[in-house]
Amino acid sequence: MAADHLEQLACLRLARSGGIGPVTIRDLVAHFGSAAAALDALPDLAKRGGRARPLRLCSRSEAEDEVAALKRLGARLIARGDPDYPEALSAIEDAPPVITVKGRDDLLAAPKIAGAIAIVGARNASANGRRIAADMAAGLAGSGIAVVSGMARGIDTAAHLGAFAGAAEDPAAAGGTIAVVAGGIDVLYPPENGALFERLGTEGLIVAEAAPGTEPVARHFPRRNRIISGLSRAVVVVEAAVKSGSLITARFALDQGREVMAVPGSPLDPRCRGGNRLIREGARLVEDFAQVIESLEGPLSANFKFHKNLQIEHQHIDINILDEANKVRDEVLFLLGPSPVTVDELVRQCHCSPPVMGMVLLELDLAGRLERHPGHRVSLLMQAAPSVG
Amino acid sequence: MAADHLEQLACLRLARSGGIGPVTIRDLVAHFGSAAAALDALPDLAKRGGRARPLRLCSRSEAEDEVAALKRLGARLIARGDPDYPEALSAIEDAPPVITVKGRDDLLAAPKIAGAIAIVGARNASANGRRIAADMAAGLAGSGIAVVSGMARGIDTAAHLGAFAGAAEDPAAAGGTIAVVAGGIDVLYPPENGALFERLGTEGLIVAEAAPGTEPVARHFPRRNRIISGLSRAVVVVEAAVKSGSLITARFALDQGREVMAVPGSPLDPRCRGGNRLIREGARLVEDFAQVIESLEGPLSANFKFHKNLQIEHQHIDINILDEANKVRDEVLFLLGPSPVTVDELVRQCHCSPPVMGMVLLELDLAGRLERHPGHRVSLLMQAAPSVG
Repeated sequence: MAADHLEQLACLRLARSGGIGPVTIRDLVAHFGSAAAALDALPDLAKRGGRARPLRLCSRSEAEDEVAALKRLGARLIARGDPDYPEALSAIEDAPPVITVKGRDDLLAAPKIAGAIAIVGARNASANGRRIAADMAAGLAGSGIAVVSGMARGIDTAAHLGAFAGAAEDPAAAGGTIAVVAGGIDVLYPPENGALFERLGTEGLIVAEAAPGTEPVARHFPRRNRIISGLSRAVVVVEAAVKSGSLITARFALDQGREVMAVPGSPLDPRCRGGNRLIREGARLVEDFAQVIESLEGPLSANFKFHKNLQIEHQHIDINILDEANKVRDEVLFLLGPSPVTVDELVRQCHCSPPVMGMVLLELDLAGRLERHPGHRVSLLMQAAPSVG
Repeated sequence: MAADHLEQLACLRLARSGGIGPVTIRDLVAHFGSAAAALDALPDLAKRGGRARPLRLCSRSEAEDEVAALKRLGARLIARGDPDYPEALSAIEDAPPVITVKGRDDLLAAPKIAGAIAIVGARNASANGRRIAADMAAGLAGSGIAVVSGMARGIDTAAHLGAFAGAAEDPAAAGGTIAVVAGGIDVLYPPENGALFERLGTEGLIVAEAAPGTEPVARHFPRRNRIISGLSRAVVVVEAAVKSGSLITARFALDQGREVMAVPGSPLDPRCRGGNRLIREGARLVEDFAQVIESLEGPLSANFKFHKNLQIEHQHIDINILDEANKVRDEVLFLLGPSPVTVDELVRQCHCSPPVMGMVLLELDLAGRLERHPGHRVSLLMQAAPSVG
């Protein structure tokens, strides 16, 4: 228990240190066998990658303060690797290293609930769109499903409220609703959703990736959306314009191997064009909760496309890897440019082993010189890179 | 020309004789090499099949009267096999033996126009549904396409009117609109569409299968719908309830190998459920005319599933076939029952040639003892059949 707590704390420190993304943290933990070992190795790795200024690491006392603050808020921390970290979410490539949760955390346990399904849509949704979302959420929650959404105005709010109504009808009392928020777990947004926020923290579940007290800003929302789809086996888009956050969530869902469904609407209503377009592109048309359930293919676990890590999990660091990394680092820098290239391609061209390439990329990443892209592709951050030759 | 006229007249007489369906007429013409020869053979064939009372044949003078009446109405006859009989329609299994047309008959010539597309939907359509249909029809007609519909209230009327507006914008003046009516070519229905009916007969084209003066009754409408889809390479359903004539037309279109598209709508509007269901079942979701054109696959002619006739076309009657038919007739009657069976299966079980089986079935058909079903299946009409044994 104490050891687990220390590892969880190390994971939190990695997550809260500036400029280290979820994929890098996952690779670090895999390379060094534990978050604690990765944390110890960080400063040296960053220097090897060519980092000018030292990394700003989150201290142990800062992490302990956050854990204490969460406790005061009635919330708690779950780190990737913890047994209660949601299985569906851990399957995505950039799964959050830590999440904070408040409320009914049984809603994360897929074997108990019948799975989680996201309902997302426009903030400026029509009255009919809200009604469709609320009815669908009620039907799903009443069938033992956790309805996931983002607590935004419009469709999200309707989905949460509908799910509460439906959960009351679920004979097994397993269904419910999960709100993934863009800021900290204690930060209410939008302000008019105060009563819903209260209720979600007790009768439902609130999930946040950011530290308590974090005010949500624009860049947080797409990151939040990947968690909404990541928690879910399917994403249902109710009303969404062609360029909207809901379509970003649908895109995440596809990348994550989750099902995408959409409610159709009149071609004359711009709020329906996003959903209609998704259907044209292959999303399943759904009109109500029964069609959503009918459209689910196979058992829950069959729907996750597990992203294979480049590194073998819990592979312990080896002195040879560091030596080899020293030999190929310049060549990797020479091969990298502003256009993304797959890691596999780099491995082929450098004639090194995947673990060695992983180490070089980790070093560059920690030095702030690497950008990671979907599909295991990387590029060089040109502004930060010193001349290479 | 004179010979052609006689053959056309014979075809009309077959079509207007009571109780002989389009498939039977097609088989008769194929067996006997011409409509005229088939007409001569009819009374004897019906007797061989066991018909109690003689067939009520349309006389030559009755047929000539109809041709004269059509001329007075500014209309004319086109028989199956005539060079200007529409190619798409001739490809369907139960193509009408004759059609009567009035107006711009260039709209039937697919090589000139860019093909025909049907737009069908609810009589009680919403204002938005009508607008979508009219805009779509205008865009299609403006692109050189013939918009086919049924002149009913609601969507049909909006499609015809929209097509007129769009055709005015077509630089090649090839686009336009075709109304397939359920009654005779001179019978206005519904009564409030008088002005549209006038205009369709001059600026557009009216197509009727029934004789002039025929008042439309319920059973005419599904038969009319098969011609709407049969003339078209694609059918677009705009607003349609789950049980509606528009869905029957969509079903015909699928059976005929034509594409089915549907405009989506709110799940809360019962008029949109038919279209949404079609999309769930695989129809293409379309929002406007551009998406319809984009969704068309390949060239026009590639889209027709030509129904192969059991008989080889223009195979002349052979005395041996009649002899052989005499030998197997009782066995065929013994094998037939109220459940449909494929003609191929009958051929196998009777150990006879397909032309012989065709002849026996024609005889039974003309005797009023056979019912034909889609997919080259037949069954015995039990009420009309004398005891067999």
